[in-house]
Amino acid sequence: MVRSDGRSAAQLRPVRIEGNYLMHPEGSVLITVGHTKVICTATVEEKVPPFLKGSGKGWVTAEYGMLPRATGSRTQREAARGKQGGRTLEIQRLIGRALRSVVDAAALKERTIWIDCDVIQADGGTRTAAITGAYVALYQACAKLLAAGLVERQPVQEGLAAVSVGKVDGELYLDLCYSEDSQAEVDMNVVMTASGNLVELQGTAEGVPFSRAEMNGMLDLATEGITQLLREQKAALLALGIPITE
Amino acid sequence: MVRSDGRSAAQLRPVRIEGNYLMHPEGSVLITVGHTKVICTATVEEKVPPFLKGSGKGWVTAEYGMLPRATGSRTQREAARGKQGGRTLEIQRLIGRALRSVVDAAALKERTIWIDCDVIQADGGTRTAAITGAYVALYQACAKLLAAGLVERQPVQEGLAAVSVGKVDGELYLDLCYSEDSQAEVDMNVVMTASGNLVELQGTAEGVPFSRAEMNGMLDLATEGITQLLREQKAALLALGIPITE
Amino acid sequence: MVRSDGRSAAQLRPVRIEGNYLMHPEGSVLITVGHTKVICTATVEEKVPPFLKGSGKGWVTAEYGMLPRATGSRTQREAARGKQGGRTLEIQRLIGRALRSVVDAAALKERTIWIDCDVIQADGGTRTAAITGAYVALYQACAKLLAAGLVERQPVQEGLAAVSVGKVDGELYLDLCYSEDSQAEVDMNVVMTASGNLVELQGTAEGVPFSRAEMNGMLDLATEGITQLLREQKAALLALGIPITE
Amino acid sequence: MVRSDGRSAAQLRPVRIEGNYLMHPEGSVLITVGHTKVICTATVEEKVPPFLKGSGKGWVTAEYGMLPRATGSRTQREAARGKQGGRTLEIQRLIGRALRSVVDAAALKERTIWIDCDVIQADGGTRTAAITGAYVALYQACAKLLAAGLVERQPVQEGLAAVSVGKVDGELYLDLCYSEDSQAEVDMNVVMTASGNLVELQGTAEGVPFSRAEMNGMLDLATEGITQLLREQKAALLALGIPITE
Amino acid sequence: MVRSDGRSAAQLRPVRIEGNYLMHPEGSVLITVGHTKVICTATVEEKVPPFLKGSGKGWVTAEYGMLPRATGSRTQREAARGKQGGRTLEIQRLIGRALRSVVDAAALKERTIWIDCDVIQADGGTRTAAITGAYVALYQACAKLLAAGLVERQPVQEGLAAVSVGKVDGELYLDLCYSEDSQAEVDMNVVMTASGNLVELQGTAEGVPFSRAEMNGMLDLATEGITQLLREQKAALLALGIPITE
Amino acid sequence: MVRSDGRSAAQLRPVRIEGNYLMHPEGSVLITVGHTKVICTATVEEKVPPFLKGSGKGWVTAEYGMLPRATGSRTQREAARGKQGGRTLEIQRLIGRALRSVVDAAALKERTIWIDCDVIQADGGTRTAAITGAYVALYQACAKLLAAGLVERQPVQEGLAAVSVGKVDGELYLDLCYSEDSQAEVDMNVVMTASGNLVELQGTAEGVPFSRAEMNGMLDLATEGITQLLREQKAALLALGIPITE
Repeated sequence: MVRSDGRSAAQLRPVRIEGNYLMHPEGSVLITVGHTKVICTATVEEKVPPFLKGSGKGWVTAEYGMLPRATGSRTQREAARGKQGGRTLEIQRLIGRALRSVVDAAALKERTIWIDCDVIQADGGTRTAAITGAYVALYQACAKLLAAGLVERQPVQEGLAAVSVGKVDGELYLDLCYSEDSQAEVDMNVVMTASGNLVELQGTAEGVPFSRAEMNGMLDLATEGITQLLREQKAALLALGIPITE
Repeated sequence: MVRSDGRSAAQLRPVRIEGNYLMHPEGSVLITVGHTKVICTATVEEKVPPFLKGSGKGWVTAEYGMLPRATGSRTQREAARGKQGGRTLEIQRLIGRALRSVVDAAALKERTIWIDCDVIQADGGTRTAAITGAYVALYQACAKLLAAGLVERQPVQEGLAAVSVGKVDGELYLDLCYSEDSQAEVDMNVVMTASGNLVELQGTAEGVPFSRAEMNGMLDLATEGITQLLREQKAALLALGIPITE
Repeated sequence: MVRSDGRSAAQLRPVRIEGNYLMHPEGSVLITVGHTKVICTATVEEKVPPFLKGSGKGWVTAEYGMLPRATGSRTQREAARGKQGGRTLEIQRLIGRALRSVVDAAALKERTIWIDCDVIQADGGTRTAAITGAYVALYQACAKLLAAGLVERQPVQEGLAAVSVGKVDGELYLDLCYSEDSQAEVDMNVVMTASGNLVELQGTAEGVPFSRAEMNGMLDLATEGITQLLREQKAALLALGIPITE
Repeated sequence: MVRSDGRSAAQLRPVRIEGNYLMHPEGSVLITVGHTKVICTATVEEKVPPFLKGSGKGWVTAEYGMLPRATGSRTQREAARGKQGGRTLEIQRLIGRALRSVVDAAALKERTIWIDCDVIQADGGTRTAAITGAYVALYQACAKLLAAGLVERQPVQEGLAAVSVGKVDGELYLDLCYSEDSQAEVDMNVVMTASGNLVELQGTAEGVPFSRAEMNGMLDLATEGITQLLREQKAALLALGIPITE
Repeated sequence: MVRSDGRSAAQLRPVRIEGNYLMHPEGSVLITVGHTKVICTATVEEKVPPFLKGSGKGWVTAEYGMLPRATGSRTQREAARGKQGGRTLEIQRLIGRALRSVVDAAALKERTIWIDCDVIQADGGTRTAAITGAYVALYQACAKLLAAGLVERQPVQEGLAAVSVGKVDGELYLDLCYSEDSQAEVDMNVVMTASGNLVELQGTAEGVPFSRAEMNGMLDLATEGITQLLREQKAALLALGIPITE
Repeated sequence: MVRSDGRSAAQLRPVRIEGNYLMHPEGSVLITVGHTKVICTATVEEKVPPFLKGSGKGWVTAEYGMLPRATGSRTQREAARGKQGGRTLEIQRLIGRALRSVVDAAALKERTIWIDCDVIQADGGTRTAAITGAYVALYQACAKLLAAGLVERQPVQEGLAAVSVGKVDGELYLDLCYSEDSQAEVDMNVVMTASGNLVELQGTAEGVPFSRAEMNGMLDLATEGITQLLREQKAALLALGIPITE
């Protein structure tokens, strides 16, 4: 069973995580997964939302955007439309929730880390690439806080990455590109920790409902993909001089 | 293991689906699940969005809202804030997608069915109650189209219901009420068809990631709950003089 | 002279005020006037708008909404449109102003009571039903404040109700239903106190200007209707264990 | 009983209606009532809103605004706030409704007249001054349509003017200025035709409900004021070479 | 070379600056340049934006608007559209920046002066008329602060006026009216101080790029026009009893 | 006189224009000027705005944005704020106007070219870098139209580039970086054609007005810089296989 780009069913597209991509942010990467490219940055702000004031705990929140020509035909700029669409809000809520699941809010202390994920070029899997890249930017920003003595331990407690899986023409595939995704019967996004537990699981039948056996097959593929992505993240952090010491 | 309201782990709250709840819509119910109450209506509009013009296919779309005092403390009215929040957009996208998965768009022909789900009182599980109730309103509206000779067969092809499951204090529970949901470690919404296949699966770790074994345990609970909800839907439709004939 | 629904010119539609309609709010009713149904709630908030800070006085404010299918054809959701329309703003300003006219702001002390009126089903007279129902929800919320020792006397000083009157086909009618209202030559909303004084009077010629004699005839009808509505409110409060002791 | 500015209870402030105030619009006046100054313009547009297409009937609609420093302290610019407030929407709906009541929509044919009322300086009574001035601008624009042979008869069928009345310190007064209005117990706006019939009546108790006797006293005052305003309108039109020929 | 209105190339249209035009603002003028009429007001507010708190310095900011029928065909009201257009934002940023360049922020102390420029009638050159008129309103408001002992010296340090120049049909003209502006090949707005220095220079080729020689020719014309406008401003202030004492 | 980064007064920062930067758009570059990086894309749309329908002429329009962490401290995302700021609108109007000045609208025929300029990293001069880069993307998109036979001649008629100049500490400098710009007394943006004529000139005194001699000095510097930028653009197009044949 060969896919349109020659990959096997369980094969990721080429992944590259380029650290220190921008000069200003406390953490930044360009993550490339096949033709999908996302700039992920982490910004430290020394205050927290009102509901956390006085709690001693920090916060991680995310925003997501796409350049108008990240896509095959031009997408209207959300700033010009005057609001973020439902898809954007859904994705940025997912990114924030996923990252918070591996952060020790007390270790972070009363500060916020803003994650910005901006898709420069889209070819499927932008939200999972954003989570995988944002993890590195977040870790880097936290490492700077630790180096500066502003936190006492690394607030990021465990590895975390995300990947998409799906069912196309009856076959289960890892890491769908856009042409696969647009004709998939099932599309599932999986966020998993280094210890193999699930943080988010979002499966959607596009047309044909799926069985539990299929779901399990997709989770097996996702687990393989995430194992590889975690290695890429580690390598990218090491290249920045930040060894992960779990 | 007894829950705060005395239920067992695999027990739904009392469910009631009251048909023909409003006089104007083509389909309408009030669904009550424990203290959660949602008015679901279906409106037939004789046109389709631009991307379906000339396709011969219909469309189902959904909107979701909550009265300001559906909740324990007052929630600001979205119409007054000037925009729908991310949570609202996410829920209404989910409702529309779930219902479309069991609708034969060609059988519906070029018309739109608008689903409106308005939460009158909230005590957890509003999005799953909305899907379960909306299914009945949708089916009723389509039955009217069929009776009027506007469609040739019932466009709704299969039964569909939704329920929440979760992990609270290390225990897996079916159908979380608000007090359980607010302290759950994992929260999962499951949309399933009458044939037992999955349409949507959205699991979120609130704090502690979950294992695949836990995921499977939650899916088992959800399957039980959905079986019972499908019976309630059938009974409600029968009470409206609409037998489901799959 | 018999009306479309068999009523006489000076006859109200059947009125029902169901107290404690929702579990969360400090005051809540479902008011039914013919086919018109409005959920009215009162929420106590322990702060006041900036212009009252330090004044020792409280505030009563109102918001109004309609479910999309409260009406014969679907009305676009104001939250989705991104703003409340002129009609909505006008009605909620009216409700707030009318209720404030019978509230002793100093007795309420520095707190706000939010009134929410949501029309579940519309068949004419929604704004007057909203005022009549909201009065009961407000009184109930204030009675709770009194029982809790948070105010020293009931801040609601006098009975208040509202009704519509109009001229249809040359005849003056009390309490117009939608089909009458949509062909009325004159439409007048009257808000009156238990002592028979006027709080708001809004008369509009839809097409043909009206004489002062007609205006007086309409006010006579309104006075009769309001007398009956005040009795219904008293009965509803008594059923909640709250006798009105003016 | 002498008022703060020396007027008697039934005395209008000095009124001046200056025609052809702006060079571009089809009709325009500056109306001055005491210190209140409103620019009123009428614009002819050769199309109608969708609900009138093909009906053969025209439409009159109004918009209202205030310069930020029309008032004693600066009011935030609505264009900068991003929306028109409830008061603005309420007033412009009133102006449009009032003017439509004296226009023969069929005589106007399928075209829209836009009325713009912009308050340059405010000292109470801006909405009634706007209606009184807008009537002249509307009449002028229609006279031009008639002169150009675009309509067959003057679509404005009858004279129309508006004035405020109120109760201040227990006394009934005609034409309240701002300092009177801000301490009035009752505030009533009256729109009346040349034949003495009512088009709009909006009475509001600011604090103390009012009796029907007081309402009648206020209507008597309003009738006197409107008689005088109708004379001023006629004179202003005559000065533009447009005799009113009822 | 005679222009459409008979002016010579270097001739301004008739200018009139009428002080104390409105009763409420601390400074106000109506400036008339040919058919262009702009109401300019200055409002003193005893606070500064957050970024200046504690700095001891004041702020000058401007807003700009146009009545819908200031123009030949009706322009949609920005308050009704729900946002200010790009042209409006650009102009009001220019006005604020220009005025701040001659204000000693420390002399003003921690207060804001709001400038509002509202175009009543437009015939080209509204932004430059707004700056020229706003200067007088600002000076007047500051003179009141000085007279009241709230500032120790006049914060406005130097004269400032603005004019447009352009190239029409190959000729360089001062102070374009609308019909000239709409067919100009180059349009340039110049803001200059009494000492002949430049504060803002915005030249735009509408179609045909311009040479440096042409730019210099336009600047020469602008300098002549501004010299005359500065005289008009001085005369207007003197008529208000405010001699400029540079 | 040495600048903070060692450049001479008339020296540009290192410039790099990387063509075909994104896979989807018809034209795209990444332009780097010092640390400033802007992605510029050109999208061809086969329709024109309403005011050009039937004219036979095309349109060029531009939008501009910045990633939140393009800047030293995080800028709020305009899509999240719900509107584009005045600065953004001003810049995108400038970019569109500048490019249109060298495009033969008739040669382009009835189609629109959308220019999107997104700042990835900002260090001063983003608007001039955007214009310079957008020119190349536009030229490339037009070259594709020509190659495809959709236009008969290259619609871009002449070279165009932009640069900033300013006065810092009394010295005139070419191509200000952010640290220079933020302390500049004068900031001027110059858009010029290959033939040395001016298309846009926007000079602003930040604090101290400037003389005509200084303006001329700045224009001399700008002319030098633009000559070099035009060479870079030509080289970038040649590398894409598109020789400029003026």
